[in-house]
Amino acid sequence: MSLRFWPEGRARAVMAETPDAGHPLARLLDPRGVAVLGASRAPGKYGTILLTSLIEGGYRGGIYPVSPKSGDLLGHRFLSSLDEAQGPVDLALIVRPAPEVLPAVREVARRGIPFAIVYAAGFSEHGEEGRLLERTLVETARAGGTRLVGPNCMNIYSAPARLNLSAIPFRPGGLAFLSASGNLGFALGHEAGKHPAVGFSRFISAGNQADLALDDYLDYLRTDPATRAVLVFAEGFVRGRGPAFLETLTRTAAEKPVLLLRGARTREGQGTALSHTGALAGASEAARQGLEQAGAVLLDRADEALAVARAFLESPLPAGPRAALVGEGGGHATLLSDAAVEAGLRLETLPDPLVAALREQLPPFAAILTNPVEFAGKSEYDPRVYEKVLGPVLGWSGCDLAILFGGYALYDEALADFLGRSRRETGKPILIHDLYADEDRPAFGPLRDRGLPLFASAELAARAAGALARGGRARSRARRALAWRRQGREPSPSGASADPGTPLPGDLRAALVAARGRVERALSEADAAALVAHFGVPVLPATLARGEEEALRAAQTLGYPVVLKAHAASLVHKSAAGGVHLDLRTSEEVLRAWRAASRLTRGAETRLTPYRPGGVETITGARRDPQFGPLLLFGAGGILAELAADRALRTLPCPPEEIEEMVADTRVSRLLAGARGGAGVEAGAITAVLAALGRLLLALPEVSDVEVNPLRCAADGVVALDARVLVLP
Amino acid sequence: MSLRFWPEGRARAVMAETPDAGHPLARLLDPRGVAVLGASRAPGKYGTILLTSLIEGGYRGGIYPVSPKSGDLLGHRFLSSLDEAQGPVDLALIVRPAPEVLPAVREVARRGIPFAIVYAAGFSEHGEEGRLLERTLVETARAGGTRLVGPNCMNIYSAPARLNLSAIPFRPGGLAFLSASGNLGFALGHEAGKHPAVGFSRFISAGNQADLALDDYLDYLRTDPATRAVLVFAEGFVRGRGPAFLETLTRTAAEKPVLLLRGARTREGQGTALSHTGALAGASEAARQGLEQAGAVLLDRADEALAVARAFLESPLPAGPRAALVGEGGGHATLLSDAAVEAGLRLETLPDPLVAALREQLPPFAAILTNPVEFAGKSEYDPRVYEKVLGPVLGWSGCDLAILFGGYALYDEALADFLGRSRRETGKPILIHDLYADEDRPAFGPLRDRGLPLFASAELAARAAGALARGGRARSRARRALAWRRQGREPSPSGASADPGTPLPGDLRAALVAARGRVERALSEADAAALVAHFGVPVLPATLARGEEEALRAAQTLGYPVVLKAHAASLVHKSAAGGVHLDLRTSEEVLRAWRAASRLTRGAETRLTPYRPGGVETITGARRDPQFGPLLLFGAGGILAELAADRALRTLPCPPEEIEEMVADTRVSRLLAGARGGAGVEAGAITAVLAALGRLLLALPEVSDVEVNPLRCAADGVVALDARVLVLP
Repeated sequence: MSLRFWPEGRARAVMAETPDAGHPLARLLDPRGVAVLGASRAPGKYGTILLTSLIEGGYRGGIYPVSPKSGDLLGHRFLSSLDEAQGPVDLALIVRPAPEVLPAVREVARRGIPFAIVYAAGFSEHGEEGRLLERTLVETARAGGTRLVGPNCMNIYSAPARLNLSAIPFRPGGLAFLSASGNLGFALGHEAGKHPAVGFSRFISAGNQADLALDDYLDYLRTDPATRAVLVFAEGFVRGRGPAFLETLTRTAAEKPVLLLRGARTREGQGTALSHTGALAGASEAARQGLEQAGAVLLDRADEALAVARAFLESPLPAGPRAALVGEGGGHATLLSDAAVEAGLRLETLPDPLVAALREQLPPFAAILTNPVEFAGKSEYDPRVYEKVLGPVLGWSGCDLAILFGGYALYDEALADFLGRSRRETGKPILIHDLYADEDRPAFGPLRDRGLPLFASAELAARAAGALARGGRARSRARRALAWRRQGREPSPSGASADPGTPLPGDLRAALVAARGRVERALSEADAAALVAHFGVPVLPATLARGEEEALRAAQTLGYPVVLKAHAASLVHKSAAGGVHLDLRTSEEVLRAWRAASRLTRGAETRLTPYRPGGVETITGARRDPQFGPLLLFGAGGILAELAADRALRTLPCPPEEIEEMVADTRVSRLLAGARGGAGVEAGAITAVLAALGRLLLALPEVSDVEVNPLRCAADGVVALDARVLVLP
Repeated sequence: MSLRFWPEGRARAVMAETPDAGHPLARLLDPRGVAVLGASRAPGKYGTILLTSLIEGGYRGGIYPVSPKSGDLLGHRFLSSLDEAQGPVDLALIVRPAPEVLPAVREVARRGIPFAIVYAAGFSEHGEEGRLLERTLVETARAGGTRLVGPNCMNIYSAPARLNLSAIPFRPGGLAFLSASGNLGFALGHEAGKHPAVGFSRFISAGNQADLALDDYLDYLRTDPATRAVLVFAEGFVRGRGPAFLETLTRTAAEKPVLLLRGARTREGQGTALSHTGALAGASEAARQGLEQAGAVLLDRADEALAVARAFLESPLPAGPRAALVGEGGGHATLLSDAAVEAGLRLETLPDPLVAALREQLPPFAAILTNPVEFAGKSEYDPRVYEKVLGPVLGWSGCDLAILFGGYALYDEALADFLGRSRRETGKPILIHDLYADEDRPAFGPLRDRGLPLFASAELAARAAGALARGGRARSRARRALAWRRQGREPSPSGASADPGTPLPGDLRAALVAARGRVERALSEADAAALVAHFGVPVLPATLARGEEEALRAAQTLGYPVVLKAHAASLVHKSAAGGVHLDLRTSEEVLRAWRAASRLTRGAETRLTPYRPGGVETITGARRDPQFGPLLLFGAGGILAELAADRALRTLPCPPEEIEEMVADTRVSRLLAGARGGAGVEAGAITAVLAALGRLLLALPEVSDVEVNPLRCAADGVVALDARVLVLP
């Protein structure tokens, strides 16, 4: 350990903050010695800058500059080779242009140095040749037991180790920042200089993630006692590491907040991200919902990330999204109400007795009293009004957090003490908007001493509060998922775990095999219906009919009105092809439909079912996402699916509560619950179908995609009106 | 004119900037003398602060402090009455608590002083008593020809008059700020101190708008040569002044940008606004779309308003929303792509030959080349890369504006000159994101000299660019609306003007009169269909049938399948009541339906039409909005209307292009144009229906609401399947 150089007391303090030394990345962030391959003393050279940062940052481990030229910098003599290092080297910084990186990595691996950072660009982000070179780098490093950071990355900072390789004057503190982009890391670091309240524990620029990837770093930060909250910038995930990231995210989020500034949210952003990092961002909605399910607090603006992260360092996480707004100024009150709602918060109305009590504390012309509560100028001459109003409001059960707005830097020790104490006792976050918050006024000292977050912008305070509320929910979901897994997962039908269930009948097994050989890779509708039925999805009675007579007999048996469809595994888009005939009420209508359908299939089969109009049509399905693995989906069906963008997704496996919530998250659920045509659909019937489709996908690795669309939902139950199953090649 | 006090040259400069002296508000913003009723010399008193601001702000007109106590402040002796004023007084500042305001207003009105500002709160925002007092104030003032600013307002600032009554150190410049909230005005003014590039021409805090309202002030700013752009904060409109505001907005927006920071966007914000100003905000979607139609550039964040407004002071307005992103840093490129798209901008892909040309200017490992274009570090050692890359990109037809991103304060005169010249020559805005933009670096001087807007945040640059694009569109729409009105409006059917058309038949006239007397105030479906048909909406052939025999005969004549509906003016929600029977194919089905329907109407009429399945169902209508007057609406019909929130609105009358665009603005228009079921619906057929409904509403003042829902849209034409007309009481 490099700690031998440190004063005794400090060393103990740092050791207490050092994660389990057994973590695979412990020595990367707390190395005993650092070598600089490509050290320089020429001004402006990166080798010079790095070495200077290392020395001047106060790092007390061994420092070993290596250069073919002799020389020294700030008292450190350049070595001609790594072999000259006099102590253990845990980290090698490779400061070489791309073509010279491989020999350096070979050298590092030969010495068995556990970690190396490669700064140069020009690898996987630069075409096939770069990808090959990058793979060779990794293989060379791995052969010697060396793990690589980068290439194409910026740097690391580690407060407990006093290791700052970045040009950024980080202040020590509780926020870890993990960035998949070098420039963005630098920009946020630079901005951090303007946020005196945000201090950093670690900063890691992950670059191309040729070897070590975001999930590796995140797992380290999870165990890191110096880190109270994590801010990640990510655009996507390399080499199929999406599920691993989600898994690590859940374990981390159960312990500390993980804020994820998410690039590549749009199709355009995805294109940009792909071209410069080679990372696949995944379908935007799946990424958003999957990351939130796993426990991330998603952020969409880099320029707000630090201010929002700051609120997480010392605030409790609220139990819910219900905000109470208390402060000064009608215009602020209106805009803050808007901003709070737009940030996902809810404003409950204060109960009448509480309003009456508050009215006595405020000037007679006070007009905004039911949430927001506006002081009508009183705070200017009576700072105690905060206590008199905020106290009862914080005690109210309709308040999960409070935002004070429109302040004019009028705080004293007593008020700050009240605020700090109230927050501690109620466990409810208090965020403060003050017009002068960007200035260094003495009145803010007592607030800052107590870690009360201050904002110069009411909108930003609202967005930070919204993020805190999402943080509370994210932690609950992460903990719920972990608890569910520890219980060995629920048995069917309520949870979507990979329950093998009863064995698949031989004919369905054979149908799946046969589908692999076809161009469409689809089961026929009859087989698809049988397969989903096997897993527990209610389907309509159906009859396959080959000739006119069979069709008429089938209609008779099923009972009019009926539906007749052309039936062939190759007919994936029956409806568009004109192969679906609904609401046939007479034998003449059945015959006419049969003739049209059999023209389409050249005389092959038709499939008849009862006609079931009405109800609400939904879409349910499960598929494998290239980024996140198995996904479950639910949403409005039919024409709505195209227009309403009303789709909920969950990664699989997931606890049964996630399935209930995914149904409730959609707008179509409002129709199911009550409105026209859908009154009284039993929610459990829908979640059972979703759970069944989830089990199907997890139990049958050869299935790539299963969809029941539409699933007819009505008071008399749910039933699949059509089913589609695709298999992998 | 107060100008006699000014040095000759300065007076001329100011006169050139002074609006038409004939404008009714000219003397409010450029008064010859100002009286302060309630002057004081006690520190901290508002009367003292105001008087001090007036004197120290450099105002050169007559200053007349009035107070019952004798005294003086900064050399100005207190007068015991207004009558002692030695020169003309154009503006009286009434610094009195609410109960003492009325006598002061009486005094001002008696003297015929044209303008008075009332600061006190406690009027219409404070219940019925306050409303009455406020009305008395206005009547008292009006009797003497005095116009009131406020009450419950903050202040005014007028740069050309050197009149600054606010405590805000405004810098002179081209932005006028009109605020319906005092605190918000103050907060933005305070923030303006941190934006050295934003200078102000005028600031007006409108308060309760008891007399002078937002539209009065906006009209003044329209004619004001000192004002290059207007920023308005509004939560709603008082006393039905919504249409007047829209009208003034259009005339202003045709000449200069009007940015509207809109409070009360959400239901919660509307509740807050109503309680403190008494202003009605109007349904949120109608307000948003109506204000944009009239020419407003809507903003939703106070903390961004100044940075965005600043971009409008010196940038041209772009011809469209297509942005080119050029700069440094992959992470920035991704996040900026996201932010640009989320801000409503479009990113076109650079054509291959242009990409090939750019590739030669950039390092071999440059990977982001098709928009965004990323320098891959080259700008750090070659600032000319901006010209080499940005030049061709600005010349490209797929670029309406450019955002430079990821800068590191590396600009010189030559580069700034290139940027300024390029902007001038192409007419395309150039916005610059630089990590150090918040700092005062010498490199920014040349950019600021040329009015090139700088942003420390890439997201904010994107949002400002998005606002500029909306500004370009807003100006076009405002100018188009004015041109259309000047042409005397289009004849039917393409424009929705109040064309009287052919006279209404007597029976329809009688039906409208009869409907006024009914509880439901609705026409029967047959009358409603006849009324919309009279104005040109295609309707189905229909037959009213009283008995079974008539119903069967009607079905025979119309041809199966048919629809049969219960028919009575009192039956407004037929469908929910079970009074609608679709797709009746046989006489048995008609009879069964007839019996069910006639039970509902107790043997009254039924109405039969042909059954027309398929097509896309849309909703079209027109109604009177309490805030904005006549509105036209279009959107997805049926179940979609509830779920998809897919509704376009326009205020009436409007040019025909607005109607075409409102159809194109909806998501359902994508189905109409091509997708399933709707292929090839002729857009002109839908706009003709909308124009007809607009004409109907404008021609018949007794109609409050007309709705055709659904309007069936298919390749074979559009047709009303149901119509509803409500009349005013």
